[in-house]
Amino acid sequence: MNFPTVGVIGAGQLARMMVPPAIDLGINLSLFAASSEDSGAQIASHIVGDYKDAHALLEWAKSCDVVTFEHEQVPRGVITALEAAGVSVYPSSHAFEFSQDKLAMRGKISELGLPNPAWEIYDGATPTLTFPLMAKTSTGGYDGRGVFVIADENELKELHVRIGAPLLLEEKLNFDYELAIMVARSPHGQAATWAPTLTVQRDGICIQTITPIPEISDALATDAISTALAIAQGIDLVGVMAVELFVVDGKLIINELALRPHNSGHWSIEGSRTSQFEQHLRAVLNLPLGDTSLTAPFAVMGNVIGIETDKDGDLYRPYRHLMARNPGLKIHQYKKELRPGRKVGHVTALGSELLELRTEVDHAVAYLSGAIDE
Amino acid sequence: MNFPTVGVIGAGQLARMMVPPAIDLGINLSLFAASSEDSGAQIASHIVGDYKDAHALLEWAKSCDVVTFEHEQVPRGVITALEAAGVSVYPSSHAFEFSQDKLAMRGKISELGLPNPAWEIYDGATPTLTFPLMAKTSTGGYDGRGVFVIADENELKELHVRIGAPLLLEEKLNFDYELAIMVARSPHGQAATWAPTLTVQRDGICIQTITPIPEISDALATDAISTALAIAQGIDLVGVMAVELFVVDGKLIINELALRPHNSGHWSIEGSRTSQFEQHLRAVLNLPLGDTSLTAPFAVMGNVIGIETDKDGDLYRPYRHLMARNPGLKIHQYKKELRPGRKVGHVTALGSELLELRTEVDHAVAYLSGAIDE
Repeated sequence: MNFPTVGVIGAGQLARMMVPPAIDLGINLSLFAASSEDSGAQIASHIVGDYKDAHALLEWAKSCDVVTFEHEQVPRGVITALEAAGVSVYPSSHAFEFSQDKLAMRGKISELGLPNPAWEIYDGATPTLTFPLMAKTSTGGYDGRGVFVIADENELKELHVRIGAPLLLEEKLNFDYELAIMVARSPHGQAATWAPTLTVQRDGICIQTITPIPEISDALATDAISTALAIAQGIDLVGVMAVELFVVDGKLIINELALRPHNSGHWSIEGSRTSQFEQHLRAVLNLPLGDTSLTAPFAVMGNVIGIETDKDGDLYRPYRHLMARNPGLKIHQYKKELRPGRKVGHVTALGSELLELRTEVDHAVAYLSGAIDE
Repeated sequence: MNFPTVGVIGAGQLARMMVPPAIDLGINLSLFAASSEDSGAQIASHIVGDYKDAHALLEWAKSCDVVTFEHEQVPRGVITALEAAGVSVYPSSHAFEFSQDKLAMRGKISELGLPNPAWEIYDGATPTLTFPLMAKTSTGGYDGRGVFVIADENELKELHVRIGAPLLLEEKLNFDYELAIMVARSPHGQAATWAPTLTVQRDGICIQTITPIPEISDALATDAISTALAIAQGIDLVGVMAVELFVVDGKLIINELALRPHNSGHWSIEGSRTSQFEQHLRAVLNLPLGDTSLTAPFAVMGNVIGIETDKDGDLYRPYRHLMARNPGLKIHQYKKELRPGRKVGHVTALGSELLELRTEVDHAVAYLSGAIDE
């Protein structure tokens, strides 16, 4: 049989969620896992290795037709080594840089003439931006990690010494809300977006998404779509990418890029004809992209995040109550131990009554995490 | 973690299609496969063994919280041996008998006061039914196998000698059309059906399904639903079951029962909020059943069945053309070699324009099977 094998570096929940569409389409997956206990490795073909080890990755890549990622941690030198050896890697090291390096990302967005916040590189000299401002480590940050609100120059200096590398400084925006838009692009240059998604944040972590965004103007939705498509083309994206945006005085400002399936696209598993995970596989295999239309008026997704609790952390027992309460609720389990602050699953509800959907999703995540028991 | 393990006897495409919802819900699956090359065994945890070997099944069942089936071939004695050893087997041997033994099924349907065709047991004596009539082997038949149209008593005697067992005789019905309805029931007694499905047959094999049935009267749809629920309760079903029905002069006559996920429910993977495969897992685990409402006005499913062809049987190459032509088409690949008469996959299209959906599905299955090349 001539079905290709997609190699995925990383075996967390994003790799796990690529497995169902791969099974449907008959595409072979091979995960490069840190451990056989990883969320995706529990249920898919994998090898265990160190993703910083170019030699191990090269050996594994020989069994794959194309290699992709589910996290940004793979060192750029390792990716370029794979490319130099003739491995098809998507996204390419050139594109992936903008997911890994926030300074490079800001430079590229400026070059593309797309809306950045005011920003500069900090390496010890007094900044031109006024305080308070945002300081970010250029690499390694996600889910609010590596992002700091800085009150004055002394704090900034202390952070700089502690990090030991140039920082990205950005103006502190007083935004109306945050949104994300998922976009996919194939080597052939075909691109497709999904409807923009409202991301509801708490402590810098997305706790809920609403798609489409209620009462968003056509102009703003179109602007988000155009922006995502322009970035995808501008960086020669292959695969799916999340573009996170701030809405400031009714206008878009680009916050972050993530060149992989992303939490703000999980709603698409049931909420779109083609999920971000199926689309990612199609894109990296240079197959025509799928229909991204919605399957319901609204899709609300809620993250199940561990909290400090005296409960036993059993994530299966709650199914009986939740499924009886809401037969339409879709539960996604990552098979990770419940720990404070850790994403261990998500739930999605589809329908037309937004308030009801949000209430159901709030209830389900609170019940699963142990915050409430009825 | 307290997630249960569902053991599935059999590892064909039905077991394969249980895997994605099991991954979503975090439920562990263990397949009892005939070979590691089986459709489901290729992508799921499994052991290889002989399903007629009660000892081997018992050993394997120790690692499962509940055991279910994906085919009817398991000898009844093996199932009762599992039950006697305290294994939770769903459906139970009492219910499963009506899937395995057509004579027992006819007797039960009569006992329940539900509409059978005229029928009798044939063991050599001249039948009371008039010729031509249908003769069926009591066990082992599916997809038109084990079903014969008999012109006269000589033919019947010959068949009886050849089969060497009592035959089920049924009147030959002049039916308007055939439909199927899927029903699920849990040990708790909760039951749910999906919308009745029109099954389009060719040479005794279903080639396409349409859900819901176009222009079906509310009364007939309700009757189909009531019939399925009555059978499910009457045989103490646990799991999902297909009830295949004839429509004769606008009235329902029960044709067959299959106590497992079934080809006529494949549309539910995308066409319903809860697929038959997720529902089967929920039912055998005694979890509350999911919402069976439709996600689109119509779901059309087409079986990809091998034909005599000089094509190379590559089932991946057609993806490029099919996905470009119809971005909304959902392709399901069983990873079986293409052979004449063999089901190797299916496709589903959702939408409101039934004629267009049927044309697209017809085209896709013809293109995948090699019957057409454009």
